[in-house]
Amino acid sequence: MLKLLALYFFTTLIHVPITEAKIREYNWEVKYEYKSPDCFRKQVITINGLSPGPTILAQQGDTVIVNVTNKLITESFAIHWHGIRQRGTPWSDGTAWVTQCPIGPGDTVTYEFKADRPGTYVYHAHYGMQRTAGLYGSIQVSLPDGVEEPFAYDFDQSILLNDWYHQSTSAQATGLTSIPYMWVGEPQSLLIQGKGKFNCSSVTLPTNICNTTNPECSPYVITVIPGKTYRLRIASLTALSALSFQIEGHKMTVVEADGYNVEPFEVDKLYIYSGETYSVIIKADQDPSRNYWATTNVISRHPNTPPGLAIFTYEPNEPQQSPPTVPPAGPVWNDTADQFAQSQALKARQGYIHTPPPTSDRTLVFLTTQNTINGYTRWAVNNVSLDIPETPFLIALKYNLPNAMDQTPPPDTYDSLNYDINNVAKNKNATSSTAIYRLKFNTTVDVIMQNANTMKMSHSETHPWHLHGHDFWVLGNGIGKFDLKEDTKKFNLVNPVMKNTVPVFPFGWTALRFQADNPGVWAFHCHIEPHFYLGMGVAFEAGVEKVGKLPTFIMGCGQSRGLLN
Amino acid sequence: MLKLLALYFFTTLIHVPITEAKIREYNWEVKYEYKSPDCFRKQVITINGLSPGPTILAQQGDTVIVNVTNKLITESFAIHWHGIRQRGTPWSDGTAWVTQCPIGPGDTVTYEFKADRPGTYVYHAHYGMQRTAGLYGSIQVSLPDGVEEPFAYDFDQSILLNDWYHQSTSAQATGLTSIPYMWVGEPQSLLIQGKGKFNCSSVTLPTNICNTTNPECSPYVITVIPGKTYRLRIASLTALSALSFQIEGHKMTVVEADGYNVEPFEVDKLYIYSGETYSVIIKADQDPSRNYWATTNVISRHPNTPPGLAIFTYEPNEPQQSPPTVPPAGPVWNDTADQFAQSQALKARQGYIHTPPPTSDRTLVFLTTQNTINGYTRWAVNNVSLDIPETPFLIALKYNLPNAMDQTPPPDTYDSLNYDINNVAKNKNATSSTAIYRLKFNTTVDVIMQNANTMKMSHSETHPWHLHGHDFWVLGNGIGKFDLKEDTKKFNLVNPVMKNTVPVFPFGWTALRFQADNPGVWAFHCHIEPHFYLGMGVAFEAGVEKVGKLPTFIMGCGQSRGLLN
Repeated sequence: MLKLLALYFFTTLIHVPITEAKIREYNWEVKYEYKSPDCFRKQVITINGLSPGPTILAQQGDTVIVNVTNKLITESFAIHWHGIRQRGTPWSDGTAWVTQCPIGPGDTVTYEFKADRPGTYVYHAHYGMQRTAGLYGSIQVSLPDGVEEPFAYDFDQSILLNDWYHQSTSAQATGLTSIPYMWVGEPQSLLIQGKGKFNCSSVTLPTNICNTTNPECSPYVITVIPGKTYRLRIASLTALSALSFQIEGHKMTVVEADGYNVEPFEVDKLYIYSGETYSVIIKADQDPSRNYWATTNVISRHPNTPPGLAIFTYEPNEPQQSPPTVPPAGPVWNDTADQFAQSQALKARQGYIHTPPPTSDRTLVFLTTQNTINGYTRWAVNNVSLDIPETPFLIALKYNLPNAMDQTPPPDTYDSLNYDINNVAKNKNATSSTAIYRLKFNTTVDVIMQNANTMKMSHSETHPWHLHGHDFWVLGNGIGKFDLKEDTKKFNLVNPVMKNTVPVFPFGWTALRFQADNPGVWAFHCHIEPHFYLGMGVAFEAGVEKVGKLPTFIMGCGQSRGLLN
Repeated sequence: MLKLLALYFFTTLIHVPITEAKIREYNWEVKYEYKSPDCFRKQVITINGLSPGPTILAQQGDTVIVNVTNKLITESFAIHWHGIRQRGTPWSDGTAWVTQCPIGPGDTVTYEFKADRPGTYVYHAHYGMQRTAGLYGSIQVSLPDGVEEPFAYDFDQSILLNDWYHQSTSAQATGLTSIPYMWVGEPQSLLIQGKGKFNCSSVTLPTNICNTTNPECSPYVITVIPGKTYRLRIASLTALSALSFQIEGHKMTVVEADGYNVEPFEVDKLYIYSGETYSVIIKADQDPSRNYWATTNVISRHPNTPPGLAIFTYEPNEPQQSPPTVPPAGPVWNDTADQFAQSQALKARQGYIHTPPPTSDRTLVFLTTQNTINGYTRWAVNNVSLDIPETPFLIALKYNLPNAMDQTPPPDTYDSLNYDINNVAKNKNATSSTAIYRLKFNTTVDVIMQNANTMKMSHSETHPWHLHGHDFWVLGNGIGKFDLKEDTKKFNLVNPVMKNTVPVFPFGWTALRFQADNPGVWAFHCHIEPHFYLGMGVAFEAGVEKVGKLPTFIMGCGQSRGLLN
């Protein structure tokens, strides 16, 4: 109700008759404000005073228009519409230095794009480390009138999961690019729909800075009516953490992932990686006289952050009443086998299978490693760490500005034969470049993501990889070094799930296939914020010559300064 | 020596024969780095790794070229060359939203201007609250070969004074524009040439964050040779604090202020307000067997910050050896009479008098007050608080873009008869506007700065007012309400000092006269960083139609986006 009110006050929804595609127009003001999402007061980037920002609601086929005004003081930003493919509007992808110049202070720009697929998506800042400042929110795209989901529910609710740091994003970013390297460390708390609880008594801080009784950090409440069925649209936009999510005493049935219907399967807890979205169906079928815990826990990394807690309450209970139980323990953080099993369970739902092309035209094998460049810690793909270009790639390529970026193509593969993924690399050095991958338009591309040991002995991390502008088929994954001969034979070409974000497990690989059928330039990167910030990503160009006239709102930096007229 | 080496390594000086005007070219990279100037580690904006940045050295008539690259992560900035009049180059004044769009991340721009007057100047960030992040340095303009100063010295040295906050500028700025208002408070330390000493044991912080033995915060050392004479060019770029500066056991003779020779007078301690520069002559004529303290203290506000300490050492003593004495006490902080007396002592030096025009064509009487606008705390001039325009004033006026700013002229005076400057105003509300003062070109303008009670009972502050693009004569000052009839009669029209920054004392007034003979748009504002940030300033336009073609580097924001071609 409050959320609806907030939407009413803070956004402008233009309703036209529901029989035709509608325009959903939002006016957003982006600025810094002091907030205490986990009881600790810090600077947060808000949209119309909110973090998470307003939920974008659209119906398949609608046009979404977001007029964004930069009211930050000295900072620029860009907003990425994560999961929206931006077919025909690659300039609206909102990825700083890939598809646009950052939006400068004082400027108002208009993002316009089609919600061309139903499902659960998110939006978030895509510039530097700004996502961690709280600039994000949910997107729900519903089916056209008269079209039904293959699963039934009474109510629909978005829940954004996040990890939360008390250091400013700018301080984090500076530390990451310092010598000596200052890692951001584990988050101070986990947020469920923007609310967490930091233990203020663990530090010596005045109560105006940290106060666990501050109503701003009262737990998030999921209110249900006994007997009803709920669709929870769960998304993770963590900076770093892989998470589990569970609701005490309630099973969840996974039905959607990244906008695609999946063969339903039941879980006690959902594993979710940064950049992923899931819909789960949950029935309010337990003892309605009490409340239950909804919890999120760090997995994949040794947790140093307490679980995030929300309250799952049956009407008409007192919503903020703590459940009578201790919150259920999360899963064992390093049970990779169990995490892997959930990934394996994800299949396209019968009747909703998009069959992949049987073969690909080009295979990219991407070894992802932690490296050192001139003493700085970086992350690299095939030993090349992505540098920020002078001019956004989309503009540089569309306008054929060859000096704007490196021209030597980055490598399609790595020396798999001689590279030991299970040990610290003998040579930790890498190079960096602003070169990108040029794909032939309308071809099919396989990408094998190969994970390896980091610079620390016996240590490899889970990386969620996100592709802009496309969905991909997840053809397979495994632990160990990918075998181009044997593992390709085991690819699932029958009912692979389509996604836009997928985890690559420690020392493991994940195989993707996608069609380069969306003209533009698209980032493909690890969704862990400090990893992409340190170069763990690539960009793919395809059919840039087919891209329409670029709008001027994306220009104004580097060599695009002269293109504003 | 180290400084010279640093200059050698970090800047490019192009030397052409000294008989003609030279070009002094600098290449600067501006970025965030972790530094511990007062032993507390925080993010600092550096130039080529330094804060204070490299000292600009030029000879009168030289052209200074500074190529600045923005390597901040998501922030823009602008650099103001404080005291340089920018005659013929108003676009190089470096004042965000007045003379230029902020310089965006990744951009390289070139400031070019003539060092047309000898003297002591500074440069600093002029955007939001960024000056407090450490982006500043000294400018020394020497006389042409063969021209002598009217005072003798063997060595010349710049010393920048500052106050220092541990909170980031962004956090400060957000707090200032919050409801409830969060004032920045008193600084944590005072810096002498970028070095201070915070008492780390007063807080619970790990030693990697605060460590008083960190060599980065070893005291600044002024090394002298016994018997020699020194010119110390002392500048203050404090965010908030008025300061005193003294050297234990040594008298100082004030000889220059803001680039003008003044009738010499001797002081034990120098009072200096933010934005002011002074040259003092000091003789190394004391017992050379020991070191002495150089100290700076907060004045005008109840000090809550320990004195800043540097070491004045005679060669060949151990420079870092603490003097055997306790540092001398600073002056009584609220001895306004003594501070006022120093202002009164400032007269143009015989032989160097620039006689002011005997009358003015227009008199502006500026009442400056702390106010409330829609619940926000602001500062105002004649009840109007300056808002940031959509398009920089210089561009809007030169290109005649009337929609870019408010057109109703701000008031020339206030209701002096009915305003009680000694009490809290009955109506604290003010308005805000992007309107500016249009001056007739080549006319003489008087500005009477009238200080008043703040929103707190029996409380008024010292405000240093700085004029861009011009020097002004200081015709007089006093305590109480300015009397247009009586006080004008007492104006010093014989030997008034010329300055670019002048204090206005609590409950007092200061009268200035200047000639509007520099085509452009120029800020005139309180040099206290949070005060100008909250609207305590105006802008003057004169002869904008005579301004040459604006360079594109100042464009790209607001309505100037379309002017880049």
